[in-house]
Amino acid sequence: MINRQVILVKRPEGMVDSTITSLVYSPRPDCGPDQALIKVGMLSIDPTIRTWMNDAPGYLPPIGIGDVVRSSGVGVVIETRTPLYQVGDAVFGMTNWQEWVVADEEHKFTIVPRGMGLDLPTVMNVLGVTGITAFFGLTEVGQFKAGDVVVVSGAAGATGSVVGQIAKARGAARVVGIAGGSEKCAEVVEKYGFDECLDYREPRLAQRLRAACPAGIDLYFDNVGGEILDAVLTNIAMRARIVLCGAISQYNEMDRSRGLTNTSMLIMRRGRMEGFIVLDFASRFAEAQMELASMVMNGTLVHQEHLVHGLENAPDALNLLFTGGNHGKTLVVVDDTVKLD
Amino acid sequence: MINRQVILVKRPEGMVDSTITSLVYSPRPDCGPDQALIKVGMLSIDPTIRTWMNDAPGYLPPIGIGDVVRSSGVGVVIETRTPLYQVGDAVFGMTNWQEWVVADEEHKFTIVPRGMGLDLPTVMNVLGVTGITAFFGLTEVGQFKAGDVVVVSGAAGATGSVVGQIAKARGAARVVGIAGGSEKCAEVVEKYGFDECLDYREPRLAQRLRAACPAGIDLYFDNVGGEILDAVLTNIAMRARIVLCGAISQYNEMDRSRGLTNTSMLIMRRGRMEGFIVLDFASRFAEAQMELASMVMNGTLVHQEHLVHGLENAPDALNLLFTGGNHGKTLVVVDDTVKLD
Repeated sequence: MINRQVILVKRPEGMVDSTITSLVYSPRPDCGPDQALIKVGMLSIDPTIRTWMNDAPGYLPPIGIGDVVRSSGVGVVIETRTPLYQVGDAVFGMTNWQEWVVADEEHKFTIVPRGMGLDLPTVMNVLGVTGITAFFGLTEVGQFKAGDVVVVSGAAGATGSVVGQIAKARGAARVVGIAGGSEKCAEVVEKYGFDECLDYREPRLAQRLRAACPAGIDLYFDNVGGEILDAVLTNIAMRARIVLCGAISQYNEMDRSRGLTNTSMLIMRRGRMEGFIVLDFASRFAEAQMELASMVMNGTLVHQEHLVHGLENAPDALNLLFTGGNHGKTLVVVDDTVKLD
Repeated sequence: MINRQVILVKRPEGMVDSTITSLVYSPRPDCGPDQALIKVGMLSIDPTIRTWMNDAPGYLPPIGIGDVVRSSGVGVVIETRTPLYQVGDAVFGMTNWQEWVVADEEHKFTIVPRGMGLDLPTVMNVLGVTGITAFFGLTEVGQFKAGDVVVVSGAAGATGSVVGQIAKARGAARVVGIAGGSEKCAEVVEKYGFDECLDYREPRLAQRLRAACPAGIDLYFDNVGGEILDAVLTNIAMRARIVLCGAISQYNEMDRSRGLTNTSMLIMRRGRMEGFIVLDFASRFAEAQMELASMVMNGTLVHQEHLVHGLENAPDALNLLFTGGNHGKTLVVVDDTVKLD
């Protein structure tokens, strides 16, 4: 009757190390009236979790010291005292980094459809927040249109790889990825079908972008921020759209003294730079999921998941996003008996 | 039969000094077939001229070394061999920094209406590129709506002062200016009717913006870029719109090592930052001019012009924009006999 939890004990400076979180043993919560008790199966490890650990204004309040680390995940309903959930339902929502969680009127979960022939990691990756972010970031915020020259950073990552594949499927003139290291760049081209991929660790990224996109970049999907965004700015085409999805290069940074210096290109080229949070599109998630599911089923969307086993390894899994040690969507398996079939 | 001209002889680093331009005496151009000969009366001195002096990509090519400095202005037709212009017409267009210019099929001018009861400096300020920039930047790029909290930098300047007054006239909840020095700040409030004006030369601008706009900034009209833009970014409201009109703080800068560091606020608050050039709205200029003219005539638009006499003083007039030594729209009087009445 124990609920293992990973709590935040100290705000990180830079990477999350062993002093930042603590594994604690709490009593398993009871299933009260109008509640359902959920056993957590898998956690979605997203860069945004790192931002919630800072004591800084954000789109959600910071995680409190002593609180369980906030995270989305999937679980299964074990006990229910509400007609909203049935025992055995697979549910998606804010499980946080723990083994057990309670659903109620204040803390709602979404029932995950079974029987699609897709396994849980695929659903959590492509049909979860990661894939939906790629979809709406490209199509709505970026106003993608056929014939666009598209550049995507974090191209080997869970979101970036999906962005590029949707752009190709919808008729982009050219899709160029940016990733770290020759191995990842090869993966972006060979596995995910981008036309080209540039290694940001090599010098002169701005010049290489110019060579890769001589007519300029119509749409840039930015997962990283920082110097890579600055290099892209010098190469935008007229009426370019820059989609700010994340700034992973900045999340662990202590010294931000070198900021963006090329934003005047937005004036010269009448460009637009716009940020978004996928939750803004919550009422339209099904639209994205339908298109993404059909792409997976007909084999036009290649995806990859990186499974880390054990709740206690969630902090290390989070660090993988920043070291680039992951391949594809990072998920933590808390209980491998939770499945979709 | 002389045409005095100010030509660019060297590209500036920083401010324009006496080594950058040269006053030369050329032969007065002839009026050829299908041409009209124009005597230049007044030059519009705009920050963008400084950007054209750099050898850098822009929305127009750089001014060539040895070329007359590019500038808009108003003149009067002295001789004509085309039905498009009549002798005595007042015309607006790219006169450049010189006394005489020829209009033809490649180099067109717009006829300025007479008889509106407005003098030439007023027309060149409010009904010229300056006022039109304020109008479309606020209403179209910024998508202004009644109830918005609006912040304007360069608020004592020709464009900024008009932006704030249109916003007030159209129902802004609050209009806060940013300007340099207590004298200019007082002018912004007392003369142009802004609710408040913050002096960017005083410390802690970001905190003072927070106090002035506790619910956040819905629309920021940016005339300056740099650190002021960065301070605004930390205070944007949800769905904020940042209109990039110019980055005057950057035009003379040699060291741009400190760039924008707060663009991740665009993600947190789903903000948009968009650049524009008023020429993009050329087909709709009359729409802006009608509204601006009616505001001037009914006394709801206060404006001010700063006249500098003598073509040879045009380089000093340009520097005034960057030192803040001007009050209102800076114009150079080349020939004070050119009038609208």
